[in-house]
Amino acid sequence: MSTDPIAWIAADWGTSNLRCCAMSADHRVVDRAESGRGMQAISTGGGDFEAALLELIQRWLRPGETIPISACGMVGAKQGWIEVPYVTAPCSPGTPTHRAPTRSAQISVSIHAGVRQNDPADVMRGEETQIAGLLALQPGFEGLVGLPGTHTKWATLADGKIQSFQTFMTGEAFALLSQHSVLRLTLAPESWDETAFLEGIHRSLASPADLLSHAFRLRAESLLNGLDGTAARSRLSGLLIGQELAAVRPSGHVSLIGAGALTRPYQTALEALGIKATLVDSEAATIAGLAVAHLSSDGG
Amino acid sequence: MSTDPIAWIAADWGTSNLRCCAMSADHRVVDRAESGRGMQAISTGGGDFEAALLELIQRWLRPGETIPISACGMVGAKQGWIEVPYVTAPCSPGTPTHRAPTRSAQISVSIHAGVRQNDPADVMRGEETQIAGLLALQPGFEGLVGLPGTHTKWATLADGKIQSFQTFMTGEAFALLSQHSVLRLTLAPESWDETAFLEGIHRSLASPADLLSHAFRLRAESLLNGLDGTAARSRLSGLLIGQELAAVRPSGHVSLIGAGALTRPYQTALEALGIKATLVDSEAATIAGLAVAHLSSDGG
Repeated sequence: MSTDPIAWIAADWGTSNLRCCAMSADHRVVDRAESGRGMQAISTGGGDFEAALLELIQRWLRPGETIPISACGMVGAKQGWIEVPYVTAPCSPGTPTHRAPTRSAQISVSIHAGVRQNDPADVMRGEETQIAGLLALQPGFEGLVGLPGTHTKWATLADGKIQSFQTFMTGEAFALLSQHSVLRLTLAPESWDETAFLEGIHRSLASPADLLSHAFRLRAESLLNGLDGTAARSRLSGLLIGQELAAVRPSGHVSLIGAGALTRPYQTALEALGIKATLVDSEAATIAGLAVAHLSSDGG
Repeated sequence: MSTDPIAWIAADWGTSNLRCCAMSADHRVVDRAESGRGMQAISTGGGDFEAALLELIQRWLRPGETIPISACGMVGAKQGWIEVPYVTAPCSPGTPTHRAPTRSAQISVSIHAGVRQNDPADVMRGEETQIAGLLALQPGFEGLVGLPGTHTKWATLADGKIQSFQTFMTGEAFALLSQHSVLRLTLAPESWDETAFLEGIHRSLASPADLLSHAFRLRAESLLNGLDGTAARSRLSGLLIGQELAAVRPSGHVSLIGAGALTRPYQTALEALGIKATLVDSEAATIAGLAVAHLSSDGG
């Protein structure tokens, strides 16, 4: 923990977690705090978002002072603290923000608007802030940005705006198939085989419609040929990401925003397609995006 | 229950259930019995397959007589009563059978071999018997046969043999996505909207790689446009079956074997593609397939 004074707080408040960073006036991280009190736990537990936030950041507050808090994510959803209406793409990401009502005078909370797309219908809450952060960190970036996760997003950026985007349930499908389907008997726990992963990528690129057949084949190869559990797990990951890339058809400038464990397979797959992706750490992108809104909301 | 004497017993013994039919000498169903003691419950509960079978069919046995029982399904798997080795496609379905060891002299149990395919690796246990039944009910059938289910199979038949086959985890993926993914909030329970189902079929046929994006779009359309839960459920079913049909590309003579609730969506989808499929009831197919083996095993 640094001894710099705390000027504002960045809050990444998603479905499952609340992650806060105490920030200095020049946007360096002074301290971190995290809890499992995401939107879902709070909304099913009575809905007191303010209490959950104050409990986590109590040590950063000073008597008689009001600290600005810039927040993004599902905290702005219908089941969140306040429902912040979506802005409609094409649009600049990460603005506007809405003020959440508080009982305490020690905090002033702004929540980012999510982004909607009308046709094809799609939504994001939180990723728009990371995209705003990417544009702050790499001014003028134009091209495709991928945000791997439970629901992976791909957005096309031009003129400083999200022009369009598309969500894939790739991470969730991997979790369901690896933990709850017949494949759970075949796949090893967390482990990695890059060759098998790339096999999956190329099989799905060649015939994306065969995904659920290629998936069963892992079980059959395990029964008949003793396919290794690590290879099976990695190939399933490649099949799912390969199907996604067959739909997105990435080209040109590509950035990936995320934690290393999530972005690495995508980076490997893109390299196999001859595309060198720029990596942006997800915390850095979130903070940079929240900082943009913090600056614009208090005129700083 | 008919009063005909019982000549033999047909046993469809899968992962989750044991279904037995008492059969007359001319292959009519005299009586039925069913239990939840499938391969999985028995193998995790000590493995006494004989006791589970005797308990269910006790009332059909006669002192001093030995009744032939013809069985198919996972009862012949490694975790089953005895492991019956697969035969390798191309092959005639439903033969050979292996005798299971019994303590009781009142039963004589033959278990059908499953079918394997080496490349692409694939396996079936139980469906080969239904395919043998189809060939018994419709002698000379050549073409494609679909067996919708948790793991849907498509087999190409010619010269009375399974030439090749392919398994899709379509039913299991539907169950996981509708019950355990974020879509559980969007989908209505059991309900049907044929227009929405066909929309899903056509979307997947047009761009099968977009499956997991089209699936998320159901959630987005529900949030943004109030998409109805019945339409969402039916479109998801169409998306999954449509992706499967995009891979199989059915043409020519097509038969579907299964219970009505499973075959109806496939039939609807095939009709939209201009293909009129012949329906075969799954119980009728299983019994006809087991009858073939019963006849060949006792020389009848």
